[in-house]
Amino acid sequence: MKLLNTLAPAAALIALPTLGLAQDDGPAPGVNASTDTVFIFNSLLFLIGGFLVMWMAAGFAMLEAGLVRSKNVAMQCMKNVVLFSLAAIFYYLIGYNLMYPLGTWATEGVISGVWGPAVLEAVGVTADAADDYGYASTGSDFFFQLMFCATTASIVSGTLAERIKLWPFLIFTIVLTAIIYPLQASWKWGGGFLDAAGFLDFAGSTVVHSVGGWAALTGALILGPRIGKFRNGTVVPIPGSNLTLATLGTFILWLGWFGFNGASQLAMGTVGDVADVSRIFANTNTAAAGGAVAALIMTQIMYKKPDLTMVLNGALAGLVSITAEPLTPTLGAATIIGAIGGIIVVFTVPMLDKIKIDDVVGAIPVHLICGIWGTIAVVFTNGDATFATQLYGIVVVGIFTIVASAVVWFILKLVMGIRVSEEEEVAGLDMGELGMEAYPEFSKG
Amino acid sequence: MKLLNTLAPAAALIALPTLGLAQDDGPAPGVNASTDTVFIFNSLLFLIGGFLVMWMAAGFAMLEAGLVRSKNVAMQCMKNVVLFSLAAIFYYLIGYNLMYPLGTWATEGVISGVWGPAVLEAVGVTADAADDYGYASTGSDFFFQLMFCATTASIVSGTLAERIKLWPFLIFTIVLTAIIYPLQASWKWGGGFLDAAGFLDFAGSTVVHSVGGWAALTGALILGPRIGKFRNGTVVPIPGSNLTLATLGTFILWLGWFGFNGASQLAMGTVGDVADVSRIFANTNTAAAGGAVAALIMTQIMYKKPDLTMVLNGALAGLVSITAEPLTPTLGAATIIGAIGGIIVVFTVPMLDKIKIDDVVGAIPVHLICGIWGTIAVVFTNGDATFATQLYGIVVVGIFTIVASAVVWFILKLVMGIRVSEEEEVAGLDMGELGMEAYPEFSKG
Amino acid sequence: MKLLNTLAPAAALIALPTLGLAQDDGPAPGVNASTDTVFIFNSLLFLIGGFLVMWMAAGFAMLEAGLVRSKNVAMQCMKNVVLFSLAAIFYYLIGYNLMYPLGTWATEGVISGVWGPAVLEAVGVTADAADDYGYASTGSDFFFQLMFCATTASIVSGTLAERIKLWPFLIFTIVLTAIIYPLQASWKWGGGFLDAAGFLDFAGSTVVHSVGGWAALTGALILGPRIGKFRNGTVVPIPGSNLTLATLGTFILWLGWFGFNGASQLAMGTVGDVADVSRIFANTNTAAAGGAVAALIMTQIMYKKPDLTMVLNGALAGLVSITAEPLTPTLGAATIIGAIGGIIVVFTVPMLDKIKIDDVVGAIPVHLICGIWGTIAVVFTNGDATFATQLYGIVVVGIFTIVASAVVWFILKLVMGIRVSEEEEVAGLDMGELGMEAYPEFSKG
Repeated sequence: MKLLNTLAPAAALIALPTLGLAQDDGPAPGVNASTDTVFIFNSLLFLIGGFLVMWMAAGFAMLEAGLVRSKNVAMQCMKNVVLFSLAAIFYYLIGYNLMYPLGTWATEGVISGVWGPAVLEAVGVTADAADDYGYASTGSDFFFQLMFCATTASIVSGTLAERIKLWPFLIFTIVLTAIIYPLQASWKWGGGFLDAAGFLDFAGSTVVHSVGGWAALTGALILGPRIGKFRNGTVVPIPGSNLTLATLGTFILWLGWFGFNGASQLAMGTVGDVADVSRIFANTNTAAAGGAVAALIMTQIMYKKPDLTMVLNGALAGLVSITAEPLTPTLGAATIIGAIGGIIVVFTVPMLDKIKIDDVVGAIPVHLICGIWGTIAVVFTNGDATFATQLYGIVVVGIFTIVASAVVWFILKLVMGIRVSEEEEVAGLDMGELGMEAYPEFSKG
Repeated sequence: MKLLNTLAPAAALIALPTLGLAQDDGPAPGVNASTDTVFIFNSLLFLIGGFLVMWMAAGFAMLEAGLVRSKNVAMQCMKNVVLFSLAAIFYYLIGYNLMYPLGTWATEGVISGVWGPAVLEAVGVTADAADDYGYASTGSDFFFQLMFCATTASIVSGTLAERIKLWPFLIFTIVLTAIIYPLQASWKWGGGFLDAAGFLDFAGSTVVHSVGGWAALTGALILGPRIGKFRNGTVVPIPGSNLTLATLGTFILWLGWFGFNGASQLAMGTVGDVADVSRIFANTNTAAAGGAVAALIMTQIMYKKPDLTMVLNGALAGLVSITAEPLTPTLGAATIIGAIGGIIVVFTVPMLDKIKIDDVVGAIPVHLICGIWGTIAVVFTNGDATFATQLYGIVVVGIFTIVASAVVWFILKLVMGIRVSEEEEVAGLDMGELGMEAYPEFSKG
Repeated sequence: MKLLNTLAPAAALIALPTLGLAQDDGPAPGVNASTDTVFIFNSLLFLIGGFLVMWMAAGFAMLEAGLVRSKNVAMQCMKNVVLFSLAAIFYYLIGYNLMYPLGTWATEGVISGVWGPAVLEAVGVTADAADDYGYASTGSDFFFQLMFCATTASIVSGTLAERIKLWPFLIFTIVLTAIIYPLQASWKWGGGFLDAAGFLDFAGSTVVHSVGGWAALTGALILGPRIGKFRNGTVVPIPGSNLTLATLGTFILWLGWFGFNGASQLAMGTVGDVADVSRIFANTNTAAAGGAVAALIMTQIMYKKPDLTMVLNGALAGLVSITAEPLTPTLGAATIIGAIGGIIVVFTVPMLDKIKIDDVVGAIPVHLICGIWGTIAVVFTNGDATFATQLYGIVVVGIFTIVASAVVWFILKLVMGIRVSEEEEVAGLDMGELGMEAYPEFSKG
């Protein structure tokens, strides 16, 4: 998404004279919305976008609950509800202020306000007193930004499912949402050095999806694969317990992505902005479609049978791939960018298996590999992007996230252990850690 | 929905003088929103309506996954994800341009632009350069219209479930969304001859629902019933595997329908338009309620036990019934129109069985029969509608869709076959065509 | 939520002069949205809020379907679909008019219009003719208010699950939505004596949630516990059949609550209003998070194993707790108010068991006890609230709802009986009352 703090004054500068001209000229095509109206439209975009992205938390929960075995479903639900809750609390306490003032901090060398919790506008704020007046309410921006932070955490839970202990996972989530995500996000969206370097990432192929993916990959390497996944050099397929819920989760994510990408335009108070948001909605949708169809065709060709899980991940791959630049592509280009994402997933899922990285739901191919692809693909449709800068951003964010995640995972491993016991893993985390089952009345096959 | 292309200039004509008057008069009740603001509100209506209708794709998926047997659930999910994806791609490549310029084509005899893919506004379009300036962004309109096309395709998949091959179904979907739907939709919504004749269909009881229903009916006749459905002259009930998901699907469709009908007002930038959208929301909701309650009472009376599947289909029947005219009825009339839809479903589901048409989910009663009923019901609340014209539209669209669908289904039958083998049907399409199960860990009863 | 009828003229008074000043001063920060634009924004808030709260009906359905045993799932789905439908019809026929004119009735001693069904604005209403011009469309307000009434009914169905007969439950729903809810709601939101007394309940901790809770509690006492729940002085845990769906239901409710609380601001046409809506979104989210995390920690401490059902109910408890005042708290205060709600649930669920009240889904702790807590908590962040007045409102509404519900339940018990037979309860309501199963293919464990 664009940079909030620099945009706000720019928007004010542009809006006011135009408004003046319009009023001088009398009613005519080109009569601008008033400053208040622009402020309301922008805030509304954040609120609608925010609740759509919040809904993605349910999408991840259903996708992951559908792709794990039934003995681990309750735990997967638990993790998804709690990780979202922890993200809400710790992004408020630390993350939001760490993410946005950093631009100021970096340039002015001060940390005023950095460590205080997020503060919203006063109740019944007057127009003049509103922060960023002419732009949008701080509360709506906070609400929207929080959901991106929570999405990053949601990505991690799927990869590490069926074997990670609850509490170390939750502690990692706290560090991720309070510090790791906000810190690197500030480099681009907080006006930091990646933004200054010209790195482009509209809605977060790198800032959100690859960060979640790197954290998941690091965790998967340290945690090791599930018992029985790799046996005598062969890969044992472990089918998910409920593909209907996985399908539902994919549709939920697809829906939520309109908020994720669309509201990352950060404004809809002008004709140009709302037309751009519309472009983004259309491009986001067609990229998902491209990814799903490409995965369908590829699995039909490669395995003679289309694979539903791959088609679902193909749609998500298309969505991740278009996220770094959902605005500039034509509908055709967006379809192709998404389709390449779908193809990538079909090829990288078995490759991960080959190198014995056990990613339960395919989050690393979808969010990390396609996050990288999407970030690079910006150069094909946006003239402001260069391959070198995009690569620079990918590498910097990647190294930081790997190192930071590894440090946290290793400390957790040392201090409390991150993996459940072998007996518990075989019996399922639901009975072992929670003492309950997701489907207690249905016998297991 | 109303006609976009003719409305746009009309809206501009109305809006500008009013705006002028308002500004001449100074601030007073009746101060109009500025042209920009109207444009933004209208585009926003399309975007919100569009994502709500997109969500209906998930509703159809859950409804159908819940109403088929578990051995066909993964396939039903696959079909629903892919049909939506194909609709997105082919409506963009062919359908959208076929649907809208046809008015021009028909009247001017030219086909300029017809066959090029849909093109959205440029990035950061200025107010003056926006297509249909003063109305709404092309991108938002495309996004919204696409979802109607996809809905039409979603209707077909349920009827033909549990026996149709994947690929022929997908090819049919392509023809339906690229050509059949857009062509007939252009007759009404593209400003074609049905529109000129005075045929009224606000949000598509005929244009969307009956078209899906006719295509499904034609397919069901050519495909034949499932093995074991009609045995020795008796109808064997085949219960769905997951009524909770069918319930969820119904709620999703109910929610999505606010976008379907509400945003078909095509404008909310004036007091009158937003009040109309509000009427439509309220009427749509109460029609669904009427359908559900009517189905409850009818099944209680007829079978002594209320039937959940009928109640769900009753709600959907109410929604389809109000779709041709959700604006003009009072709340009471809307409730009755919906209730009659619910009663129709209770009577036509067993009638279809009697004539040995096997409609797995009841899509023909809900979308076709209630689509016809809803189209006729327009005459009771909208003085501009005549029974003859409504019937004319129903028949023309019906004959066209039956003939076009039959041609496609027969070609597919000849070229590649449309039905899975008997063994595969008995074993379930999930293992046969996909090699996976939706619920692998749960034993079948 | 605030009081509609008194707000409307107030808003008009404030908006017009400001608008005048703005236009006299020329374009400058503080240029207000025009009257039309304010009307559209407010109506749009009701429509978005309304469809989000409508979605909560699906949330209750999934939550309850997930928390009952599989033999009662179809019935639980049935009840949730039909109760929502009946609420839609009877709130229109009686409730809405009973709720709003009562202020007038109480003060003027007339009942003009009270018993007529709700009437929306005419089609294509002009700005001058719109009811409450300058405020919002009646249709959007009706749509939004209806959803609150339906929510109240949804709360009851969970507590009484697995043993109550369908038809008496539905008749109770009719009385609740036509009379009990609207009557007491008018005391606060219709401008009645509770409003005059200074009782504060922003979005309905008392008016919606505790009313549903009191009705459920009264029903549970009269209906008695399920067979086998309390045996020889011990409490027998009866686990829900599908915790994934319960999780989905919780996420749906969480999402819908942004509409529930956010749109209860009743306006977003000014900078202050939209900033307030944003605050409410952020506070609502963090209260849910606080409730979930508190329940997690409490169950970990008390039972050594975190309890997923408690965490889900903790999130809902947080939501109910913040509902009486989601605007004035800071993010920190909102988190704590929600967290206390989560703790309350963990303690009151076993307490209810101890006194042998059988609440199948925990609706009494969540909606009643936390509804009371949330209403009291207003005094901590809103200087206009006093403990005495809040308590007065809680007690008045509580006594009225208990008495009115008890009368209805007892009449139903006398006239038709409210409880299924012992055999039917043991066999499950699905086969007994509906003759169908929700999951017919899956064997029971």
